[in-house]
Amino acid sequence: MKNLLVAQSGGPTAAINATVAGVITEALTSGQVDGIWGAVNGIKGVLEERFVDLREKIQGTGDLDLLCQTPAAALGSCRFKLKDPAVDDSQFSRIVEIFRKHDIKYFIYAGGNDSMDTVDKLSAYCREKGMDDIHVIGAPKTIDNDLVGTDHCPGFGSAAKYIGVTFAELERDCHVYDTKAVTIVEVMGRNAGWLTAASALARNNGGKGPNLIYLCEPAFSIEGFLEDVKRELETNDSVLVAISEGIKDKNGVYISESVQSGAVDTFGHSYIAGSACVLEEAVRSRIGCKVRSIELNLMQRCAAHVASRTDIQESRMLGMTACHLALERKTGLMAAVERISDEPYQVRFTGIPVCSVANQEKKVPEDYINAAGNDVTEKMMSYLRPLIQGEAPVIYKNGIPAHLILY
Amino acid sequence: MKNLLVAQSGGPTAAINATVAGVITEALTSGQVDGIWGAVNGIKGVLEERFVDLREKIQGTGDLDLLCQTPAAALGSCRFKLKDPAVDDSQFSRIVEIFRKHDIKYFIYAGGNDSMDTVDKLSAYCREKGMDDIHVIGAPKTIDNDLVGTDHCPGFGSAAKYIGVTFAELERDCHVYDTKAVTIVEVMGRNAGWLTAASALARNNGGKGPNLIYLCEPAFSIEGFLEDVKRELETNDSVLVAISEGIKDKNGVYISESVQSGAVDTFGHSYIAGSACVLEEAVRSRIGCKVRSIELNLMQRCAAHVASRTDIQESRMLGMTACHLALERKTGLMAAVERISDEPYQVRFTGIPVCSVANQEKKVPEDYINAAGNDVTEKMMSYLRPLIQGEAPVIYKNGIPAHLILY
Repeated sequence: MKNLLVAQSGGPTAAINATVAGVITEALTSGQVDGIWGAVNGIKGVLEERFVDLREKIQGTGDLDLLCQTPAAALGSCRFKLKDPAVDDSQFSRIVEIFRKHDIKYFIYAGGNDSMDTVDKLSAYCREKGMDDIHVIGAPKTIDNDLVGTDHCPGFGSAAKYIGVTFAELERDCHVYDTKAVTIVEVMGRNAGWLTAASALARNNGGKGPNLIYLCEPAFSIEGFLEDVKRELETNDSVLVAISEGIKDKNGVYISESVQSGAVDTFGHSYIAGSACVLEEAVRSRIGCKVRSIELNLMQRCAAHVASRTDIQESRMLGMTACHLALERKTGLMAAVERISDEPYQVRFTGIPVCSVANQEKKVPEDYINAAGNDVTEKMMSYLRPLIQGEAPVIYKNGIPAHLILY
Repeated sequence: MKNLLVAQSGGPTAAINATVAGVITEALTSGQVDGIWGAVNGIKGVLEERFVDLREKIQGTGDLDLLCQTPAAALGSCRFKLKDPAVDDSQFSRIVEIFRKHDIKYFIYAGGNDSMDTVDKLSAYCREKGMDDIHVIGAPKTIDNDLVGTDHCPGFGSAAKYIGVTFAELERDCHVYDTKAVTIVEVMGRNAGWLTAASALARNNGGKGPNLIYLCEPAFSIEGFLEDVKRELETNDSVLVAISEGIKDKNGVYISESVQSGAVDTFGHSYIAGSACVLEEAVRSRIGCKVRSIELNLMQRCAAHVASRTDIQESRMLGMTACHLALERKTGLMAAVERISDEPYQVRFTGIPVCSVANQEKKVPEDYINAAGNDVTEKMMSYLRPLIQGEAPVIYKNGIPAHLILY
């Protein structure tokens, strides 16, 4: 018996289930896999032997399509860091014991930085113990797009599309009144500004898009921001601003932290204000015009109804690649996308050593941001544009998208 | 010369431009209209003679389709209340003078309560002055769905669909971890809870949807809310809550106002916390589990990419009805939808005296809300379900929906 186990980890995205669909597709067509199992709640579920039989849950291609359009992690997720095996390898020996018990030869783990660390350690552990019939492969996933070694990460393209579409709609919304107003939209990203940059995609059809875009990489100055906004207000009634949640001042202090400390309500509870909320207050008190702040919040990572077709298809192909690598008896690799060209958009699917990926962050390069630090450059646009192309086909039932529930 | 003027007012919606498309369609096909003009920024633009030539801007059916899928008000909007003509009729005489100057015989005004007040006063003024060749007709529009005299309002169905879809996606997102967590989502609606009720549409395909739904009509108690949440946490890891922004305590004080008064930051700025933010803090301090608040904010009124086909088509037909009523030499009416049956869903388009609509609010009836005040009833569901049926066809260009810009 050669069984395969797949699990998901990290924050939800609109595309991570397509990776699972890809793993299942490849496993089914390869003829080399007996049982196809999913672990519920990631590596935590592996340790607790909480498995679902995916051959039973997925009855045909229709179910695979539904899985691809279901947002978040259909197998659940976890935020669970395994202990360092050099100090205590009991969790690793337990995982291997469970793999042996269930004849699991192939383990595919889809996730971000932490999950790739798990793949790295688990594959190294198996190698050290001479268990060369266990193949552990990672599949990338994060809307933050901050994994190194892959041109981009599944989930990012769909989040980017949601953000581009939403900024285009917000631009129309904010344009209707002829009074001066500022709208500040906070986008996810504590340390990498990729998602915030995607707001510029709202300009794809000639729209103005956000007037100002601040990623979290350059140092942020509230004074500089207020000057920028005042200048934009001279020629525009409506000023639309995109900011990363993780904008920081020149000392590396988050803007959200720099102001909120003293905010308490009548019960003495402290309020945690986001960056946009802090800047809203700055505009209100220092410029005095109408101002509003918006957080795209969880919607930006789970809006599968407006997923990028490119993203979903690539996500599925990365799942197939990951499974294929495992079946080829590889281990300790992460499936990755290598970009060959922007236009025409061409990519190659490959596997890279997961040790080169784990615990690293890919930030936005300097030349993707303009000199003033308040917009992105054409290099960024060329990078972003292909990733949101095409609309994922969504099957609706009773007016809302149909989702597949695995547990 | 018999020219027609159309204008838009009030808050943006995903469907108001379809009403303008309907007006244009009817005007073009009737053969009774010479010029078709749009006033920019509502009645304010009429007074300032800021007109666009819609025959020139709309070159064919393709442009009409694009107009239908463009969110917000393509002709701009205003928040501008005309002076009471009994006190000072100078604005009314000026409007009529402008109508005469441009041979405008038909004026269609799409908007909410205030706009219907304008239609009412302007049509009455023309009647009083014996100008029976000027025909003033209203078309309903508001995501709040609070206009009386019409079964529902264009814009509501699309906002309801966005809310239903988003809650279904948030449910998937919040479900992935196996730790106790509460997510509180604030939906628009200061005085009417229709939009918040639409969160229940997330259950259309068997999902649990929000565990708790609080509309703004019944008195809201923070203590009762905390009890409800605790009870739900006993049997669920993730508790998803929908609340109206306008929830009020038994004395009619907005929950958002009851707590925020003392919240100030280190600069002494006061923070305006929304209802969800106040409840988030209450859960954090009183229950102590992981909690997050989300505002659907402007996205819920401008998400044309996920518009309801039923809503967009009805909105267009209401525009046609409004134009048709004007061409029939009617005045002082509002185009309205009358529901004949829920299942099969059947409606009739009609015109009702606008004086019966102006300055009134349609709240959610008591029997649409459960006895505990924390959910909706089947009556509400029967009312809501037909309104989100079908997906409006959206033409994408370069990865984002194409929008038509009129000025």
